[in-house]
Amino acid sequence: MADQWQECMDYAVTLARQAGEVVREALKDEKNVMLKSSPVDLVTATDQKIEKMLISSIKEKYPSHSFIGEESVAAGEKCVLTDNPTWIIDPIDGTTNFVHKFPFVAVSIGFAINKKIEFGVVYSCVEDKMYTGRKGKGAFCNGQKLQVSKQEDISKSLLITELGSSRTPEVVRTTLANMEKLFCVPIHGIRGVGTAATNMCLVATGGADAYYEMGIHCWDVAGGAIIVTEAGGVLMDVTGGPFDLMSRRIIAANSRALAESIVKEIQIVPYERDDED
Amino acid sequence: MADQWQECMDYAVTLARQAGEVVREALKDEKNVMLKSSPVDLVTATDQKIEKMLISSIKEKYPSHSFIGEESVAAGEKCVLTDNPTWIIDPIDGTTNFVHKFPFVAVSIGFAINKKIEFGVVYSCVEDKMYTGRKGKGAFCNGQKLQVSKQEDISKSLLITELGSSRTPEVVRTTLANMEKLFCVPIHGIRGVGTAATNMCLVATGGADAYYEMGIHCWDVAGGAIIVTEAGGVLMDVTGGPFDLMSRRIIAANSRALAESIVKEIQIVPYERDDED
Repeated sequence: MADQWQECMDYAVTLARQAGEVVREALKDEKNVMLKSSPVDLVTATDQKIEKMLISSIKEKYPSHSFIGEESVAAGEKCVLTDNPTWIIDPIDGTTNFVHKFPFVAVSIGFAINKKIEFGVVYSCVEDKMYTGRKGKGAFCNGQKLQVSKQEDISKSLLITELGSSRTPEVVRTTLANMEKLFCVPIHGIRGVGTAATNMCLVATGGADAYYEMGIHCWDVAGGAIIVTEAGGVLMDVTGGPFDLMSRRIIAANSRALAESIVKEIQIVPYERDDED
Repeated sequence: MADQWQECMDYAVTLARQAGEVVREALKDEKNVMLKSSPVDLVTATDQKIEKMLISSIKEKYPSHSFIGEESVAAGEKCVLTDNPTWIIDPIDGTTNFVHKFPFVAVSIGFAINKKIEFGVVYSCVEDKMYTGRKGKGAFCNGQKLQVSKQEDISKSLLITELGSSRTPEVVRTTLANMEKLFCVPIHGIRGVGTAATNMCLVATGGADAYYEMGIHCWDVAGGAIIVTEAGGVLMDVTGGPFDLMSRRIIAANSRALAESIVKEIQIVPYERDDED
């Protein structure tokens, strides 16, 4: 079966690159922005077009496979992970960046079997960086092997997180309180380029020591998750327990030690799970 | 005289590119990190080496010119802007990024005459992007003309700022309170790549609508300032008054309207001026 999944992964890379071309072309035009859950939860026709293109191409080749796609879920499809081979797709991770032409926009594809991620592909379109990771086979960017950083001391770490898309005062306050707590440990700094997928790949490259966020969805992190672990990093829930793809929460760190140090500093922001009805 | 300054600018571009090569080489090695004002105010031998290289090269060619350099000031030199042609240099803007190999590190050179910036050169080394701006002649990135974005409505804007290097509780609290206030206007989002110079160039490209920060130094923004204005943007003090290079505060926006909207939302964090004894 191993080869079959390699074939799937190669196909994911081809499709992500094609999707990235569409993104780059679309970046040249003015966007007609639509709103989803709030005035800051943006979507464009390009998000929907790319997701349709990806899913229809994969369905044609693998008719028995399942799908979880950001825009399909927004349109009412169920978001449930089964044991069936499942493609978890974010056609444009960083839609706000895309709308503003801020140069970090990623196509993210994760592939799970028996609820475990087998491979992930994240294509950072503007940078033309193709990140890939496959279980037991390592993580790569444009063919170059990735390795997380070695800094396990939180007081010498550079972290990545985002303010997120919620504007609920309590959520924003806890998000900022967590940043304040970590910032004053002190840590070296906090960065954020506006896409979970790219943020995770930056951890995989060793460019930052850890990324954490609450409020993300499974499609934001499914691709990046295995890229981080295959680069030598760890995934953890913000409670310190095991990472749960459907929980809307993640710590992706260079080491267990650093992830646990982050756990100690942050408060949980409650979010409804991705697989809750 | 116009030609003389063009010659200076061409020389700045050449030197910035050479400095960038040194940065890229140094990124491959482990860094010996030293501390300046605090455990999170980092400096490396590369910062000092590049500044010396830049200043000695310029001095040889223009012995009558003046200099303000980040590391020279740290070493005790005066930070005073006179009417004399003055090179304002940050050898590595984003030293924390440099230490962590987070891929945004810039060499920033601003050149002022009669206290007005005549040209600016910002070389984003890892991305290999050379940003330039000269008074009345436009701003460019790798030869391509830059133009700021058109979004003047703050509630549809993408802003850039940083948490900065201070860990004084009051400063951190005001910095975060400002972010909260803006975030909940609401705006589309807040980004930050960890270098003032690159952040300003992102505004010049139209990738973000405005950048603001308090606590920065003249060498962080002297290069980027004219790149923003020559791309059609504006500079403003956070009080709404005219931008003052030595004031440690800046708003660099696509328009006066957006800059004024930011002014309305943020509280001032007091910092000692760069030219205070």
